[in-house]
Amino acid sequence: MPTTAAPTPQAPKYVYDFSEGHKDLKDLLGGKGANLAEMTNLGLPVPPGFTISTDACRAYLAAGRAPDGLDAQVGDYLAALETRMGRKLGDPEDPLLVSVRSGAKFSMPGMMETVLNIGLSDASVSGLAAKAGDERFAWDSYRRLIQMFGKTVLDIDGEHFEEALEASKRAKNVATDVELDAADLSVLVDSYKAIVREQSGRDFPQDPREQMDLAIRAVFDSWNTERAMLYRRQERIPHDLGTAVNIVAMVFGNLGPASPDAISNSGTGVAFTRDPATGHSGVYGDYLPNAQGEDVVAGIRNTLSLTELENLDKTSYDELMRIMSVLESHYRDLCDIEFTIERGKLWMLQTRVGKRTAAAAFLIASNLVDEEVITPDEALDRVNGNQLAQLMFPQFDLSGTPKRIAKGMNASPGAAVGRAVFDSYTAIKWSRSGERVILIRRETNPDDLGGMIAAQGILTSRGGKTSHAAVVARGMGKTCVCGAEELDVDTKARRLTAPAGVVIEEGDLVSIDGSSGAIYAGEVPVMPSPVVEYFEGRLGPDSSHADELVRAVHRIMTWADEKRALYVRANADTPDDAARARRFGAQGIGLCRTEHMFLGERRTLVERLILAEDDSERRKVLAELLPMQRDDFVGILTAMGGLPVTVRLLDPPLHEFLPDLTELSVRVAVAEARGEEHENDLRLLQAVHKLHEANPMLGLRGVRLGLVVPGLFIMQVRAIAEAAAQVAKAGGVARVEIMVPLVGAVQELEIIRDEARSVLDEVTETTGADIRALIGTMIELPRAALTAGQIAEAAEFFSFGTNDLTQTTWGFSRDDVEAAFFSAYLDRGIFGVSPFETLDRDGVGRLVSVAAEEGRAARPGLKLGVCGEHGGDPDSVHFFHDVGLDYVSCSPFRVPVARLEAARAAVNNPRA
Amino acid sequence: MPTTAAPTPQAPKYVYDFSEGHKDLKDLLGGKGANLAEMTNLGLPVPPGFTISTDACRAYLAAGRAPDGLDAQVGDYLAALETRMGRKLGDPEDPLLVSVRSGAKFSMPGMMETVLNIGLSDASVSGLAAKAGDERFAWDSYRRLIQMFGKTVLDIDGEHFEEALEASKRAKNVATDVELDAADLSVLVDSYKAIVREQSGRDFPQDPREQMDLAIRAVFDSWNTERAMLYRRQERIPHDLGTAVNIVAMVFGNLGPASPDAISNSGTGVAFTRDPATGHSGVYGDYLPNAQGEDVVAGIRNTLSLTELENLDKTSYDELMRIMSVLESHYRDLCDIEFTIERGKLWMLQTRVGKRTAAAAFLIASNLVDEEVITPDEALDRVNGNQLAQLMFPQFDLSGTPKRIAKGMNASPGAAVGRAVFDSYTAIKWSRSGERVILIRRETNPDDLGGMIAAQGILTSRGGKTSHAAVVARGMGKTCVCGAEELDVDTKARRLTAPAGVVIEEGDLVSIDGSSGAIYAGEVPVMPSPVVEYFEGRLGPDSSHADELVRAVHRIMTWADEKRALYVRANADTPDDAARARRFGAQGIGLCRTEHMFLGERRTLVERLILAEDDSERRKVLAELLPMQRDDFVGILTAMGGLPVTVRLLDPPLHEFLPDLTELSVRVAVAEARGEEHENDLRLLQAVHKLHEANPMLGLRGVRLGLVVPGLFIMQVRAIAEAAAQVAKAGGVARVEIMVPLVGAVQELEIIRDEARSVLDEVTETTGADIRALIGTMIELPRAALTAGQIAEAAEFFSFGTNDLTQTTWGFSRDDVEAAFFSAYLDRGIFGVSPFETLDRDGVGRLVSVAAEEGRAARPGLKLGVCGEHGGDPDSVHFFHDVGLDYVSCSPFRVPVARLEAARAAVNNPRA
Repeated sequence: MPTTAAPTPQAPKYVYDFSEGHKDLKDLLGGKGANLAEMTNLGLPVPPGFTISTDACRAYLAAGRAPDGLDAQVGDYLAALETRMGRKLGDPEDPLLVSVRSGAKFSMPGMMETVLNIGLSDASVSGLAAKAGDERFAWDSYRRLIQMFGKTVLDIDGEHFEEALEASKRAKNVATDVELDAADLSVLVDSYKAIVREQSGRDFPQDPREQMDLAIRAVFDSWNTERAMLYRRQERIPHDLGTAVNIVAMVFGNLGPASPDAISNSGTGVAFTRDPATGHSGVYGDYLPNAQGEDVVAGIRNTLSLTELENLDKTSYDELMRIMSVLESHYRDLCDIEFTIERGKLWMLQTRVGKRTAAAAFLIASNLVDEEVITPDEALDRVNGNQLAQLMFPQFDLSGTPKRIAKGMNASPGAAVGRAVFDSYTAIKWSRSGERVILIRRETNPDDLGGMIAAQGILTSRGGKTSHAAVVARGMGKTCVCGAEELDVDTKARRLTAPAGVVIEEGDLVSIDGSSGAIYAGEVPVMPSPVVEYFEGRLGPDSSHADELVRAVHRIMTWADEKRALYVRANADTPDDAARARRFGAQGIGLCRTEHMFLGERRTLVERLILAEDDSERRKVLAELLPMQRDDFVGILTAMGGLPVTVRLLDPPLHEFLPDLTELSVRVAVAEARGEEHENDLRLLQAVHKLHEANPMLGLRGVRLGLVVPGLFIMQVRAIAEAAAQVAKAGGVARVEIMVPLVGAVQELEIIRDEARSVLDEVTETTGADIRALIGTMIELPRAALTAGQIAEAAEFFSFGTNDLTQTTWGFSRDDVEAAFFSAYLDRGIFGVSPFETLDRDGVGRLVSVAAEEGRAARPGLKLGVCGEHGGDPDSVHFFHDVGLDYVSCSPFRVPVARLEAARAAVNNPRA
Repeated sequence: MPTTAAPTPQAPKYVYDFSEGHKDLKDLLGGKGANLAEMTNLGLPVPPGFTISTDACRAYLAAGRAPDGLDAQVGDYLAALETRMGRKLGDPEDPLLVSVRSGAKFSMPGMMETVLNIGLSDASVSGLAAKAGDERFAWDSYRRLIQMFGKTVLDIDGEHFEEALEASKRAKNVATDVELDAADLSVLVDSYKAIVREQSGRDFPQDPREQMDLAIRAVFDSWNTERAMLYRRQERIPHDLGTAVNIVAMVFGNLGPASPDAISNSGTGVAFTRDPATGHSGVYGDYLPNAQGEDVVAGIRNTLSLTELENLDKTSYDELMRIMSVLESHYRDLCDIEFTIERGKLWMLQTRVGKRTAAAAFLIASNLVDEEVITPDEALDRVNGNQLAQLMFPQFDLSGTPKRIAKGMNASPGAAVGRAVFDSYTAIKWSRSGERVILIRRETNPDDLGGMIAAQGILTSRGGKTSHAAVVARGMGKTCVCGAEELDVDTKARRLTAPAGVVIEEGDLVSIDGSSGAIYAGEVPVMPSPVVEYFEGRLGPDSSHADELVRAVHRIMTWADEKRALYVRANADTPDDAARARRFGAQGIGLCRTEHMFLGERRTLVERLILAEDDSERRKVLAELLPMQRDDFVGILTAMGGLPVTVRLLDPPLHEFLPDLTELSVRVAVAEARGEEHENDLRLLQAVHKLHEANPMLGLRGVRLGLVVPGLFIMQVRAIAEAAAQVAKAGGVARVEIMVPLVGAVQELEIIRDEARSVLDEVTETTGADIRALIGTMIELPRAALTAGQIAEAAEFFSFGTNDLTQTTWGFSRDDVEAAFFSAYLDRGIFGVSPFETLDRDGVGRLVSVAAEEGRAARPGLKLGVCGEHGGDPDSVHFFHDVGLDYVSCSPFRVPVARLEAARAAVNNPRA
């Protein structure tokens, strides 16, 4: 066939016969088309057909009309199909019918359009009846065509057709459409045609080729419906891919005996090549005799287990088993398939690598390695960090079969339990008095921020995964279920009403599952994740309590650690965090923040430091802080037992340690108004005023503090050095990396480095300990990245602070803008994902690349790492691997995710 | 000579005979050395000698010792010098003496070291006496050598030598050292040698080569004295240049008759080749018979006018006139020279292009063109924008000879008059009651900020040009004189005491001149600058009132406008500003900010807009604002009469239009405490709370506002379009460029552009007017620059907002950090100059280059401009010319500066 259908001269090739494609052409042919082609070439029984490429769709959408050459190419391929089938599209005697099915690169279930039975017309309906020997089947097929075509191609409200169908049933006084006979359906076809004329102002097209062309355009157009765009935004599918269109010869699973009760040798079904929950071998699927795919979806009748097909039609069953085995060895993974049996002949309508739960992904990957179907490297590619993260959240214990009252969108994972509250004020008040609360709103807005912070979880009845609630909750790492539209939230009455009349009043306990979207009345017990138990070392992979999943995770993590090129460190500020990080597999601390060490009881010391009016007072305070800081570092260095620890010198603005300006001003003013004593507050207020900044994020912090507050950084360096010496004296090993924050110019770093180096030398000399500390800097300002070549001359390592780098590169502060407009930005497609979640490669990533490259050029072997939150984000980890960093550092709980993704990055892009 | 002095094998060449250099080798030989070489090659009488290069200095400073090969090369060149002079260094019979003089690329008067008379010793002093026939001269020279050597090379406190000299005079009972005879001086030499031994622990070196080598090292070391480093920071001279060292055979202007009263045929002088104030031809200089250069500097005797030399020594005078004429035609500029006559023989000791006042620079350049010495292009290179800016400040009218009480550093130009206040609180209080004040402090710190803002000018008695007062005042554009050390500032007594017992009490009038550093008691009348009068059109260049300066400025600006490639626009928000900008030569408005149009009476409308609870209220407010905005734009477009006007859509955070959070909180709390009515304030407080941002600079502003507040930008675009249509209907021409601020991603711009374009189309259709508006964006975020290729697809022009770009690239907000730490940063050499004054080329400039290049690659011919304050900064204008921008835009007063500097940039780097 392809030989007869050369592309029109000068026009690009837009159409591909199934025999011309293969499974790796998903970009061009979409997922469905590529897999139909693959099966065709495997010699499996696929109904003949061809695919119109995504190129054609993109050209159509760009120009607003079919590109030159497309219609001619479709004509050529259709002619070839007709020749092969020995029937012509819409032939009145013996019509060829086709389906027109969308099929994009990524599955978008229910989002796109499909039209079946194209080719039927007033003329050909009787030809079909004659050939099939089934008049009712022919009129029912025609009725379905007009209905489907009217809705999807001509954009007619489906209600009109439903009403006509109802009227028809009422006229005949029957309950179901199966009871309508050929004559009834023929009358219904007339009503349908009248509806088309009335609603669209045109007749239902009788020309089969016109039917087909209009259906193709409708599929193209369906790419840009609001529903499809929303879905893509939520699933992070790019908007510019376009969809392919598959034209497939119709086969009929409903072409059986006329009586629905008779045993049929037609039918339709779906199947998995192995157990999708565990990956174990076996027969898993559903079968519906005498039916078409849409009937399965509609759920009119109960399906049979696939095993029963063996009894009904052993030949087809054996053939299906053979094909499934071919597919599995070919795809080397669990596949799901759709098939139809038309009068004893098995046809494959679709296959794809099957979707699976997070747990199943790990189990299947592990099992396939055991069966020697895939290698450990391939196993790493079959799982991902998001799945692992999902397995690490605590889970509801559903063994008590709690009452699920509704389901919303799984916007931010976790299992949260608390008392229902319906406004932010109550959330804050109750939480302050020790209650756990779930904040329930129709939708949230910036006013709800306080309540969201106070709540265990957030539940809304409106808005999708890019709504304010979802975006902000994910940013906070807080459990959220959103858009639970079955719920009626009445904030005035402080009550929510769920389906079946379930009512939750303020104060009632409610449980929400951010991983599944399930909402339960009452308190559902929460179980720790067995995977976390394993990482924590409380559940060995070989212990009797370990289940299959834990063993699979263990094996895959072992392979991951062997594979990855990136080291993984953790961000940890306390010995406890450090110890947990090690248990989770961290190979060091990439960010030990010292500001947390200045809180609690030491806050008053810091206040004294800030208010110090002369050097002697300042020195006195620093001397008091020194031994405390030293103890902090001894603790952490000991916990890390010789692994590298990167200590960041004090970063935040000093005024963060002082009272809030507004609160203090109010206190002073009120005291004044009441004539009360307020001398101390007034003095404090003056200091706070002096240090107040309009934009503290862009103010006196980081290295600027170190350069302006005499002795501060030096005290910290001395504490680090003395701690390292103490650890060494106790027989331990201390590997410290001293990190100077917020450097924008090499000169800043040089001054601090020289001061720090002389303190290190001095402590080395006094203690005799061998303190081998590196001195480096964070790269967290655009200027640092842009002058990395200069800065590398003075830095022994770089650590990319991608949180701050994102803030300055984009010019927005996370605290301010995430709640204010990220939701709108995601909805309008300005971001696909918040740049604070996944590294923005074009902007921030470009700076990281430039700095890595120019830093290493200036100082070969310069140690490079990242300590922003992106260090634990799967997509970002791949980027960091690709640009050649030495390590990523993230929160302890993300360490396993980073380990896994680092390995997956190494599989995809091995380092030389 | 050079043939005998090949560089040591493998060592670089460090030493150059005067015959080996020329005037363009200042980087290598320093200014003095290069010009001595130039004069030598012109055949002028320069004492023989050689120069040790700055390479040698840098190598010495880096290694801490003389680089390999240097001593040998110096030996070779010295030997050649001795051969040529027929005398040997320090020869007891007939010693060759040399001076060792520093000479960096840029003149650093008084900063570096010089030692004269090297080669004298106990042995050679009598040889010199015999040869010179003057024993007193020989002993005096030896005494001076030991004194100078002791101080500069051996670092001995000069007091010791002064005391010994005093003692000697007391013993002889005479008043001046001229009265000491040879015997006295010989005894004094013994005392000096004892001082050297006592203070330095070593004997004064008798080996003349050792004297020379130590002196050379002392000159090298003098590069890094604190004094020299401070000077370089203040004058923005790079620290890594190093200094050259000149070894010159001594000639003696004091080798005359023994009696000081006799007519002498020796002497020394300084001269200009023409009048340094006006550029007119003539003889300008001073002469001191029977003296050496240092005596002129010491000012012991009154100098004669150079014209008198003609009577004293006509031969030398004529020779000097001839040489000055040679130098002028050779350097094609005013030169200043130093010369010495030794017994009737004229020697040239130095020449350089002469320093001049700002006014003189313009006059000289204009006159030299008239004399056909230089071309108009060269004239442009002889003046600069800083000089022009200086001429544009108002000046004190000194015709009434006001009482100058002291002089400080000219830290920030301008002429300010006001009542003396000694603390910030009083400054604010008095200024609120309408008084003009001058804030006088010993030094300022961040607490003084309010007072600095309130004052007309700032005067300090401590700190240099990088002190807090100087940095902050320059940032504010406020007059400042700093470091007036003669003043005793007593802030407790609220009084300053100047030399000669002048006392200024709080409330007394005082006048300070930030351009000269002069401080006057009382009110000195201020005159407008005639140059501004000329730009304003109130003083035509050919009018009878125009002076020579105005005519020179007029001619040079005419040449500049012919030469420059950059267009110059102005930042102007009102019709008045726009009109002034045109008078100052602006070719359009590069930044018309619309936020200023929302202040005053309209503030309540904005408050309503922000507090609007539904769309209908919001629409109502926008409808009220529309005609007001339209009138704003009609005014500006009319004032610009067809020149392009770039209108920036609303940029600042909306909360800037609301009351301050702290003030409002205090008001509410106090009202509550007093039981007063505060319902309205409470409501307002809630809104302010909701909009409050931790870092408003990084918050909801710019295009984010446009995307989040429905209708806001569209109202502005409609107002622009309707205004343009109205102007066109009235027969005018409107060229509008609509600028979207704070874009970080092309998607933001696309949405606003599409909305704006459809409003423009609609207004075009309704009015029938031809509205040809461009739509473009500011590039003011690093991400915008990094993704400029994408953004250019949607932008018809870029305007670089370098203020914001500097803030985000460096991660500091100008308001917060300038006062907090820029002074420390300048002092520690982290900046050479504030990056808000002069564009930081390595960081911000790199982003500008990248964006210009990638923007133009994506959209050839993309219009590029800059509208940050850097658009009026000389150095930055050169950068913008070099990267190929189309225009710069700056405040109206800087427009002439930008015009001139754009031309100078074109002279230095012509565009293809």
